[in-house]
Amino acid sequence: MATLKAAQWAASLSYPSIPPEAMQAAIRSFYNWVGCTVGGSNHPAASIARNSLSRFFGAPTSTLLGTNGVQADAQHAALINGIASHVHDYDDTHLDTIIHPTGPVAAALLSFAQSLDRPVSGREFLTALAAGIELECKTGLAVWPSHYDVGWHITSTTGSIGAAAAVSRLLGLTPEKTAHAIGIAATQVTGLREMFGSHTKSFHPGRAAQNGLLAAVLAADGYTSSLQALEAKRGWVKVVSNDDKLTHEIVSLESGGKWELAKNSFKPFPCGIVIHPVIDGCVWLHGELQRRGLRLQDIKTVHVTVHPLVLELTGKTKPRDGLEAKFSVYHGGAIGLIYGKATPAQYEDAIVTNPETIEVRDKIIATAAKDMRADECQILVEFETPAVRIERHVHHAVGSLDSPMTDSQLMEKFLDQCSPVIGPEQARITSDWCWSLEIKNDIRQIGKVL
Amino acid sequence: MATLKAAQWAASLSYPSIPPEAMQAAIRSFYNWVGCTVGGSNHPAASIARNSLSRFFGAPTSTLLGTNGVQADAQHAALINGIASHVHDYDDTHLDTIIHPTGPVAAALLSFAQSLDRPVSGREFLTALAAGIELECKTGLAVWPSHYDVGWHITSTTGSIGAAAAVSRLLGLTPEKTAHAIGIAATQVTGLREMFGSHTKSFHPGRAAQNGLLAAVLAADGYTSSLQALEAKRGWVKVVSNDDKLTHEIVSLESGGKWELAKNSFKPFPCGIVIHPVIDGCVWLHGELQRRGLRLQDIKTVHVTVHPLVLELTGKTKPRDGLEAKFSVYHGGAIGLIYGKATPAQYEDAIVTNPETIEVRDKIIATAAKDMRADECQILVEFETPAVRIERHVHHAVGSLDSPMTDSQLMEKFLDQCSPVIGPEQARITSDWCWSLEIKNDIRQIGKVL
Repeated sequence: MATLKAAQWAASLSYPSIPPEAMQAAIRSFYNWVGCTVGGSNHPAASIARNSLSRFFGAPTSTLLGTNGVQADAQHAALINGIASHVHDYDDTHLDTIIHPTGPVAAALLSFAQSLDRPVSGREFLTALAAGIELECKTGLAVWPSHYDVGWHITSTTGSIGAAAAVSRLLGLTPEKTAHAIGIAATQVTGLREMFGSHTKSFHPGRAAQNGLLAAVLAADGYTSSLQALEAKRGWVKVVSNDDKLTHEIVSLESGGKWELAKNSFKPFPCGIVIHPVIDGCVWLHGELQRRGLRLQDIKTVHVTVHPLVLELTGKTKPRDGLEAKFSVYHGGAIGLIYGKATPAQYEDAIVTNPETIEVRDKIIATAAKDMRADECQILVEFETPAVRIERHVHHAVGSLDSPMTDSQLMEKFLDQCSPVIGPEQARITSDWCWSLEIKNDIRQIGKVL
Repeated sequence: MATLKAAQWAASLSYPSIPPEAMQAAIRSFYNWVGCTVGGSNHPAASIARNSLSRFFGAPTSTLLGTNGVQADAQHAALINGIASHVHDYDDTHLDTIIHPTGPVAAALLSFAQSLDRPVSGREFLTALAAGIELECKTGLAVWPSHYDVGWHITSTTGSIGAAAAVSRLLGLTPEKTAHAIGIAATQVTGLREMFGSHTKSFHPGRAAQNGLLAAVLAADGYTSSLQALEAKRGWVKVVSNDDKLTHEIVSLESGGKWELAKNSFKPFPCGIVIHPVIDGCVWLHGELQRRGLRLQDIKTVHVTVHPLVLELTGKTKPRDGLEAKFSVYHGGAIGLIYGKATPAQYEDAIVTNPETIEVRDKIIATAAKDMRADECQILVEFETPAVRIERHVHHAVGSLDSPMTDSQLMEKFLDQCSPVIGPEQARITSDWCWSLEIKNDIRQIGKVL
């Protein structure tokens, strides 16, 4: 009964029944997603798809974010916005499953909502978004960790299901039709980890958005699948994992405990999450050096002590371009010290190969310590003349669950992502519009805002 | 290197290098596929998809078979034609993997060929079709049997890859781009067996056609995936199976042995393949009774001896409708005796519940014998007055590899499928056109024929 119970839960979810912290998380998740999508829209993975597939576009109903108002049919908009949102690996993370949950769900839902010939209120939209993300994370927990370990990209494999549930909710489908939609989505298992490092990684959440949207539209019109798609002997859970915590997760869904959505986290920096404590500390040190009137060129050494995984995953001492720099704790520390921030601009090739960056980077010595947590680090900056030592201990890096990004930090990130693409004025207008999504009468207006 | 080697093979396949028996099989496979697609086009699984998704259709370039010339964009035509071709479970079978190989590949290739703004010759089309089907079957053999056993619908999971290879070949992509296309297709693993018995079963080959088409189009324009998509540690073969005969299959591909395509088989009857020996024998007996002037109502008993699997899978003694009749060896025998054939018309509900059918059906007594092969059966018809006994031993049922359907049997099947949908005259014109595909200058003309 797990599939039907999940469908029943999603179909009956209402705005008043969503606790405030989950609704706030939905708003922040969508806000962050729009920033990531606009910010990723001119990456080749998105622009190739946009240009290549335009020959198939249907009637333009749905906005391709970041393109100055270009529209496509809802299916293609779901794909292309989904790609753009993930391409910089800068989107949100449900840390217990490492699902990037908003991409597949929001890409499907926004594109489809824009294609409807009726108003869609912000509350209605956020309710559907919450239903989709919650179910996505629950199915992810049901198959974690074997599903990811064997090689599935869990963001897209569960994202199809989340997107189907969200679009079904927006359409007001019955529980049975919602279950059919979940089934049609579940049978499209998209995403192998082998694709990491290529354009196809970001294709995954885009295709998941399409899978789910297609599933809900077909189910709405009477297309049938299995009503035991998730739990059956040859259903989704058993075929794609050795874990089976589905019953447990569906019970917790129905019992109304802590929402997974409320545990969603946001990346302050566009690089591997294990580097974040070092960047966090170096950003603070940037300000401290300014306050004390100390100069970067006078630094002798920067000693950094980190969790062992940091050097294992991001130990690249001499990154050659922006992509490699995302896997270099040394580059992360250097830009934190020099710029006091780490935005996509500090990961452009020209910054990575800039002599000033290299000079600071080469002063950083990183050491692994087993007693450090993954979101913790210790930094010591040594000057020779004057003989000054400044220390900074980061207990929980910004963006972790214990130190979540504030709304104003999210806004700064948003403006940093959007301004280079759509200009600072338009970025600010879009930011304001997205923050007040909950009181909007018709979210289809986003097309006019963007 | 398996993915690159497979891509190299597909990219360099040329018409003259294909042995005659494989080319003949390609022509017969496509011919049979067109009949199945037209025949399935008005089934709800196809018509719901057609109506539901028309809101997303792009510029009409590609024919929806069986719809009197309605066109859609190539992506949607691939989906809908793929659904229609499989919905009656009447399409072709590669017996060693039970892949229905032509559906995903032909649906993608035909739709895409029609969208091109240049002529596509029959030979060019058949070469691409052969490349796709062969690679599809080879990847299926690489993961057989664990892949199917765990719950994957192997027709669509391998079909995506075959479709990508075929469209890549038609586009003349380099081996490297073809490998990227295979990767983008492989990451979209579509098809859970749990969906059998619902509309979503036939959705699988349709979606596989789309997956492969999308993959090839993106790769053509520079979209990247992994060049080790099939063989990598977290690549397709290892994620979806416990078997790994990939290297073996790719070596045999390169060495140019017997083509899998040449082993493709065609179903003479629209029901479970294990019933086919009984129908084959009863069709012969129908003629024999007529020759001898014997009447069905004088039959006392029909003793049928079959492989044990026949009763296990198709032992339904009193089917209530056409769908149940597909799993009844008794109905199969009865219609063979009464009509001398078993076409979709003999599986309509009205025939299944007809008193004459029931009278003959109830005279059939089936017994399992372990020493029977699956494609073999023994039939004994007993009359009381006159006291006549007629026996028929079927060694290899028609449609099996040892007794393949002849071209004229394929044609009869084709006309039976198409005539009720497009009329007998149009069915004959289409049949003639498809048989001579190899000498056609531009297969895009199929839109005008249909």
